[in-house]
Amino acid sequence: MSSFTHLNEQGRARMVNVSEKTDTEREAVACSSVFMKPSTLQKIKEGTMKKGDVLSVAQVGGIMGAKKTSDLIPMCHNIFITGVDISFQLNEKKGEIYIEARVKSTGKTGVEMEALTAVSITALTIYDMCKSIDKEMIISEITLLEKSGGKSGYYKKRR
Amino acid sequence: MSSFTHLNEQGRARMVNVSEKTDTEREAVACSSVFMKPSTLQKIKEGTMKKGDVLSVAQVGGIMGAKKTSDLIPMCHNIFITGVDISFQLNEKKGEIYIEARVKSTGKTGVEMEALTAVSITALTIYDMCKSIDKEMIISEITLLEKSGGKSGYYKKRR
Amino acid sequence: MSSFTHLNEQGRARMVNVSEKTDTEREAVACSSVFMKPSTLQKIKEGTMKKGDVLSVAQVGGIMGAKKTSDLIPMCHNIFITGVDISFQLNEKKGEIYIEARVKSTGKTGVEMEALTAVSITALTIYDMCKSIDKEMIISEITLLEKSGGKSGYYKKRR
Amino acid sequence: MSSFTHLNEQGRARMVNVSEKTDTEREAVACSSVFMKPSTLQKIKEGTMKKGDVLSVAQVGGIMGAKKTSDLIPMCHNIFITGVDISFQLNEKKGEIYIEARVKSTGKTGVEMEALTAVSITALTIYDMCKSIDKEMIISEITLLEKSGGKSGYYKKRR
Amino acid sequence: MSSFTHLNEQGRARMVNVSEKTDTEREAVACSSVFMKPSTLQKIKEGTMKKGDVLSVAQVGGIMGAKKTSDLIPMCHNIFITGVDISFQLNEKKGEIYIEARVKSTGKTGVEMEALTAVSITALTIYDMCKSIDKEMIISEITLLEKSGGKSGYYKKRR
Amino acid sequence: MSSFTHLNEQGRARMVNVSEKTDTEREAVACSSVFMKPSTLQKIKEGTMKKGDVLSVAQVGGIMGAKKTSDLIPMCHNIFITGVDISFQLNEKKGEIYIEARVKSTGKTGVEMEALTAVSITALTIYDMCKSIDKEMIISEITLLEKSGGKSGYYKKRR
Repeated sequence: MSSFTHLNEQGRARMVNVSEKTDTEREAVACSSVFMKPSTLQKIKEGTMKKGDVLSVAQVGGIMGAKKTSDLIPMCHNIFITGVDISFQLNEKKGEIYIEARVKSTGKTGVEMEALTAVSITALTIYDMCKSIDKEMIISEITLLEKSGGKSGYYKKRR
Repeated sequence: MSSFTHLNEQGRARMVNVSEKTDTEREAVACSSVFMKPSTLQKIKEGTMKKGDVLSVAQVGGIMGAKKTSDLIPMCHNIFITGVDISFQLNEKKGEIYIEARVKSTGKTGVEMEALTAVSITALTIYDMCKSIDKEMIISEITLLEKSGGKSGYYKKRR
Repeated sequence: MSSFTHLNEQGRARMVNVSEKTDTEREAVACSSVFMKPSTLQKIKEGTMKKGDVLSVAQVGGIMGAKKTSDLIPMCHNIFITGVDISFQLNEKKGEIYIEARVKSTGKTGVEMEALTAVSITALTIYDMCKSIDKEMIISEITLLEKSGGKSGYYKKRR
Repeated sequence: MSSFTHLNEQGRARMVNVSEKTDTEREAVACSSVFMKPSTLQKIKEGTMKKGDVLSVAQVGGIMGAKKTSDLIPMCHNIFITGVDISFQLNEKKGEIYIEARVKSTGKTGVEMEALTAVSITALTIYDMCKSIDKEMIISEITLLEKSGGKSGYYKKRR
Repeated sequence: MSSFTHLNEQGRARMVNVSEKTDTEREAVACSSVFMKPSTLQKIKEGTMKKGDVLSVAQVGGIMGAKKTSDLIPMCHNIFITGVDISFQLNEKKGEIYIEARVKSTGKTGVEMEALTAVSITALTIYDMCKSIDKEMIISEITLLEKSGGKSGYYKKRR
Repeated sequence: MSSFTHLNEQGRARMVNVSEKTDTEREAVACSSVFMKPSTLQKIKEGTMKKGDVLSVAQVGGIMGAKKTSDLIPMCHNIFITGVDISFQLNEKKGEIYIEARVKSTGKTGVEMEALTAVSITALTIYDMCKSIDKEMIISEITLLEKSGGKSGYYKKRR
């Protein structure tokens, strides 16, 4: 096979090997916010959006999204998720829906991406349910709040 | 069937009927930004991240994510996407990667959600590829920039 | 290629060709019922099941299930669904949740399978949300009620 | 964050946490029946349906469906399935195909939903393969027959 | 935004825009071969493989695989497939199973990738069903035989 | 239930039970080759293909394909993949791209199918990216090179 040129592999993608990591309990908390017109938020609270009850659909979308993380993020390992919990806080003055997702797993890799994917899909679903009446919505501040388990130990974002 | 109580359907979810909408050329442009440490951005530019070339993997992730939109967003119609283009701009001083996605389709529904999903998955992929060296990243400003086709016509976000 | 034995194709599976069928508006209505203990139904109505509000989760599950029909049913064509609507009727005396799904599409094939899949996944989701307190539930009478569009025209089940 | 109104979480959905459950061998058996015209059943037996050999396609559909359970049922955990076996019994007089699925796993959650999904997708596939000649088919009696493993122990349905 | 460096887009991936292409009837035929020990082929013919009837499972796998093409091939458009037909020829002397897939569609893009994916997944399924008794199998000669429809017109491979 | 005819189960498909197998470290290496015109290979090296950088897209496609193996191959178990690495060698004289995939896992079943699926999807992606300028490409020699872990122990293909 001497006529082959070995392609330089530097910079190419790989799904890094985690076989030697130990199985531990892992947890991650992530958040995001959707900003909208106060009148849009009002309609969500009244439950009068044409496509249905926005927050309950968004919550289901986010939970199912968490389970699809490894199918969406190319180099992400597929894992067994043991629990997902998504909650909302509404700030009517600012027209903000704040989303928080807590994901748990027992395994060799952390669940940050699952928590971040959960809040992203939840936010996108809220956007989809409301877009017919509000084209100016912004999804913002998707970030990791907390993480535990694994070699790197406990992490908590400074606020 | 008189002993049945008809459940109040108000507020419940539906995938709204679009059969009577006409097929038109549709296009949507959305954006998002990932903020990180300047040193992380530097490593992306040098192509020395352990999981591979961040932007080319993220671009593939985003394009494939656009095709999964209706599988992710509960009330979103499945559609035929005719084109997806994702581009990046890097601001080294601010540690920002700005992502823009342009999605095209011919059909009965707009492609805002496909463009927004594309930039979200692209951003999440960047996050995944860099998270081992930077836990403080923030994905922000996911929003619709432009939209054309369909009954509501042309829309462009005021900047 | 004379040494080849042509395998007898009789009985083997194919996804039958529909290219010559014309695009028409199509609609199908299907139903199913979940039978449970009256006390289980009571808890659903009160919204006190541990996994959440049963009917709103089941409705989202059913709508998303309709979109996955061609991924689930081996010889089923993938189609563009233009609308899905799922409704419930509760019979407390019989401990029955009756589910009805109406699916619409514009295309070359009918949407019976999408409507039947929608009511099946809706019923399975109800089962999943309640199984910790009721192991005797039965999902029953999954059937097509109505169908229109395409060469075979209008069909309505005799009741 | 004092201006936020904490949304009442009662009734909202969650994927309940199972991290503290122990890994045990688990098994579940579920069944369903498809009722059809005796002449339809006859054609299945003769292997003369246009779309192919009904029972072998349905069996593959059901096994693949079992693997998609957590993708279909919103609050269902994704698990590692160790085995799926689907068998049929035909009652020509009643025009009935009885389907039984046995699913095994080693893990923290039961496999009832996997067994129930397997028999449902098997039944829907039979329906799809035969619907061109029989519009009156009914899928019925989807139920759990047996279950073992986990804290709740052995369960067997009284017949 | 003057502080941004526009990233050089050359070489980056895109899903090329096909909106201006016309809808035509399209068809593609592809083939592949699986080479194995004659004794393995013998067992397939006798239907005595432990995992089941190899060719009927492989055929279902290949048809379902064709429907997943755009989910698998990153820059491939999602399309409406109107028909898939997979057939086999067995050469016992050479220990060869020859697979041919014919895929049809009406749309803006060709169906070569769908036909090639169909024969690939069919071949991989045969491999999976037989690998416990034969580790030396080779999947070979996956290639396009014929293609029609679209701007480039009719193509037939010279043999 | 005496009027039932027990269907002969011989030859029918099953996902064989692996609950009693032990969890071990498993690894598999598979390869394939894509043969093309030397001028096509030249364009890949120059990075001037219209759809983007062929090898980096193909690598992402192959890694994501490995994660979809159990969704594609009907009787294949879903598993936790701990690592995937895909590399290329280019032979310009022969117009050959040689692909090698190494897949790792900890579990009850081998990862041959994951490695074979990875090289197949990688090869199909290369085909898709180049097919507008080369219709004569052939994907060939998909085969298992090496395998370790599990009861059957170490295997290495004789070359």
